[in-house]
Amino acid sequence: MAKQFVYDENGHDVSVWAETEDETVEKAREELDGADLSLDESEIRERIRVVPSPKRIKSDAEDVLMDKRRRGGIEAAEAVESGMDVGLGTGSTTAWAIAAIGWKLREGELEDVRGVATSLQSHDLARELGIPLTDVDEFDSLDVAIDGADQWDPEHPHVVKGGGASHAREKLIDSMADRLVVATDDEKRSTPLSHDVPLSVLPESRNVAQEWVRDAGGDPSLRYAEAKDGPLFTANGNLVVDCDFGEIDDVDARAADLARIPGAQEHGLFVEMVDEVVYGTDESVERVEF
Amino acid sequence: MAKQFVYDENGHDVSVWAETEDETVEKAREELDGADLSLDESEIRERIRVVPSPKRIKSDAEDVLMDKRRRGGIEAAEAVESGMDVGLGTGSTTAWAIAAIGWKLREGELEDVRGVATSLQSHDLARELGIPLTDVDEFDSLDVAIDGADQWDPEHPHVVKGGGASHAREKLIDSMADRLVVATDDEKRSTPLSHDVPLSVLPESRNVAQEWVRDAGGDPSLRYAEAKDGPLFTANGNLVVDCDFGEIDDVDARAADLARIPGAQEHGLFVEMVDEVVYGTDESVERVEF
Repeated sequence: MAKQFVYDENGHDVSVWAETEDETVEKAREELDGADLSLDESEIRERIRVVPSPKRIKSDAEDVLMDKRRRGGIEAAEAVESGMDVGLGTGSTTAWAIAAIGWKLREGELEDVRGVATSLQSHDLARELGIPLTDVDEFDSLDVAIDGADQWDPEHPHVVKGGGASHAREKLIDSMADRLVVATDDEKRSTPLSHDVPLSVLPESRNVAQEWVRDAGGDPSLRYAEAKDGPLFTANGNLVVDCDFGEIDDVDARAADLARIPGAQEHGLFVEMVDEVVYGTDESVERVEF
Repeated sequence: MAKQFVYDENGHDVSVWAETEDETVEKAREELDGADLSLDESEIRERIRVVPSPKRIKSDAEDVLMDKRRRGGIEAAEAVESGMDVGLGTGSTTAWAIAAIGWKLREGELEDVRGVATSLQSHDLARELGIPLTDVDEFDSLDVAIDGADQWDPEHPHVVKGGGASHAREKLIDSMADRLVVATDDEKRSTPLSHDVPLSVLPESRNVAQEWVRDAGGDPSLRYAEAKDGPLFTANGNLVVDCDFGEIDDVDARAADLARIPGAQEHGLFVEMVDEVVYGTDESVERVEF
């Protein structure tokens, strides 16, 4: 994951980041020299912390660096208290929540937290941050889960997830949590929900599943990859069909339709699951509780 | 797959394509009207044939439409004779070879051909073209395989494959063929080979594998997805590590290094496997035989 150096004392405000600690030291020294500040190498290294890397969210996802996502994610981490077992979601906003949990553990603001990751990339980020991780099999329930959303509805505790193709494991872990905090931003807000609903399916059922989606009034598209030829595969070897239903007025009925498709593995409608939404805006962080 | 309408008689040259047959009919009618040609709908539909779709190779891979790839692929299909069992490779050039085999079967120029596909997307293209398909388990050997390459060497019968992340199944099927014809273009030519070598690995071995690649003098990068968060998964649930070794002077030794990595599943060096390379250039199609 990427590394960031921050120095914001004595009226100075220096912040640089790079993919490795050594590159970050180099960039920091340039900036510090330019500002006539003298920190020795060990002082620079002490101030370096792990932050989410655009390259490790998806290939060059620069939007992970958007201020509103960073703010929303860091604020959502406030839901975590010492001693808690925490579900660690996936995505560009949630990555900042994971980072904030790691910083607090390092600073001693939090202790005795155990995490369980919803994806390989969340696992790797948490590990680099030093968050103690255990397997999902260790838990019957979790105290809190922090996860992102592709679209959220301020009037109902439902979200659409699955743009990152990790929604199956996310739904499992989010559903085990006593409290699901969704970390997101204001651009993803919609009443009613109208985002394409991702549906992971067995490879063999790709054609049948699309026919069922059409019968249910949706417009399905098999999701294609960019960094490989052909369709995108999930971590569990499934394909993803993105299902456009337009505005989704009856979320329950839609979820039931998707769940009965033969070969369907999991859909991205998270119904009645959300306890709180923490969302960044251009100026601040807001929240909705259910 | 996409559909193409071609009318090149009586001094006219009309060619349009679209994702569906109905859209193609509509576009064809516009062009024909503009050229004062009157064909009725059934005549238009008779002239429509299946062609590779940029959307179905990978997400919006417009390069499938490059003339040199189309020409190279169509020429490579000349290697197929009636009665043959044929391995159908993956990629934007090979897709045109598969299309040409389908057209010839429809026109009666070929008969009694059985295909075995190296990927889901080649399977779907071949099926839409009406090429009889059977499973790889049906065969002990194949008469010919037509496949693409990420880089080829005019002086040696080796290629680098795996940019499309289908190299494991490709290597299996290409190795079963009495004759491997590589369909490619002049821009992918290099002596020696120097392309990153894709290496598919068990997810659990991603860190160990990268350490072994570094020890072998390579610079590994875990391949990230674009249409999902996190790393790219292959159809077999593996990750892909792209290994930059610079110029590869000793292909055998390099292949041996990669093969002994724990958790490695398959690398993209196809050593001593190539019988013929058919490659498109801006003006024509050339070939190299080994």
